[in-house]
Amino acid sequence: MVFGSEIRVNTKGETDILDITDEVRSVVAKSAVKNGIVTVFVSGSTAGVTTVEYEPGLVADLRTAFERIAPRHAQYQHDSRWGDGNGYAHVRASLLGASLTAPVRSGRVALGTWQQIVFVDFDNRPRSRDILVQVVGE
Amino acid sequence: MVFGSEIRVNTKGETDILDITDEVRSVVAKSAVKNGIVTVFVSGSTAGVTTVEYEPGLVADLRTAFERIAPRHAQYQHDSRWGDGNGYAHVRASLLGASLTAPVRSGRVALGTWQQIVFVDFDNRPRSRDILVQVVGE
Amino acid sequence: MVFGSEIRVNTKGETDILDITDEVRSVVAKSAVKNGIVTVFVSGSTAGVTTVEYEPGLVADLRTAFERIAPRHAQYQHDSRWGDGNGYAHVRASLLGASLTAPVRSGRVALGTWQQIVFVDFDNRPRSRDILVQVVGE
Repeated sequence: MVFGSEIRVNTKGETDILDITDEVRSVVAKSAVKNGIVTVFVSGSTAGVTTVEYEPGLVADLRTAFERIAPRHAQYQHDSRWGDGNGYAHVRASLLGASLTAPVRSGRVALGTWQQIVFVDFDNRPRSRDILVQVVGE
Repeated sequence: MVFGSEIRVNTKGETDILDITDEVRSVVAKSAVKNGIVTVFVSGSTAGVTTVEYEPGLVADLRTAFERIAPRHAQYQHDSRWGDGNGYAHVRASLLGASLTAPVRSGRVALGTWQQIVFVDFDNRPRSRDILVQVVGE
Repeated sequence: MVFGSEIRVNTKGETDILDITDEVRSVVAKSAVKNGIVTVFVSGSTAGVTTVEYEPGLVADLRTAFERIAPRHAQYQHDSRWGDGNGYAHVRASLLGASLTAPVRSGRVALGTWQQIVFVDFDNRPRSRDILVQVVGE
């Protein structure tokens, strides 16, 4: 059994970190899959997905880490060539990764108690985004 | 066909890197899935999963890389707010990622000869952990 | 339904970044899966997979980021022990990750318009590589 759906979010950009756990849980519930896996996928090249304990301190700490890994104001050849000014956003997105796959058990996403699924929009402007959710199982 | 199981490990924390390849292989063997995929998932926010050639040199090198990316003694807002002292562990876990999905072919996980699946416990204390393994296929 | 195939590539090594989107699309087309997921997996410990807008600027920027995270000429215990000189390649591969899972919808990989799947060979020499592609769905 395969069930696909989308989550629409509006972001502020600039490494905006959004908790999408409830939305993913809701897709899994609608899918009627009891046991299987769920893939959350970002179809775009300036955003990513991961899990985190979603509290304001860690949201800030994660932003700081991305600034360390791919600084906002470093030189990017993408910017020299295309003038988009979002080279850092592309690099951060490629390093974080566009997909997350989690087990579904007894109809629920098997997350830890303090673990939330987050969508991270690295782009340098507010965006409207469709996140893809695909549930496979029985 | 979907088969789920858990791997229980006891870790020392502090970026403890454990080879769980044999345990994952064992779950896949039990599942009776011949062709499909296996997802290894960490249900928690201070640990992650990846692959590595598991030898003591690289285990040490990987620890050094995490220290570069999210230093143990940097300032973390998580620690200021909650006093857990494990902000670095959360950040490292979010960057590494909580899930790994690999092909299953002829009943075996299709790893390279020098490639092992590792569970990385970043937390600042020893932990007992349940790693989730989900096999989907036919 | 499960369908597995391989993509053979010849790389130049040294963080060679190859666009394998067409090859992955071709495997998905052959699989006859209309809705499901596709997993792209690197069976090896010195290469990884992610997505990026594949243009020469970002390819260079991504290489620069890997040099920041795991410098080519830092000290690696792997090199002291084994003399391979590719400790940095292993570390970069473990951090990037060996697998990517994307949704398949209406027989197509659900990528963004400017999003390509890339195989990154970090090793310190040219390699011939088999990338595994596994399609699961209906």
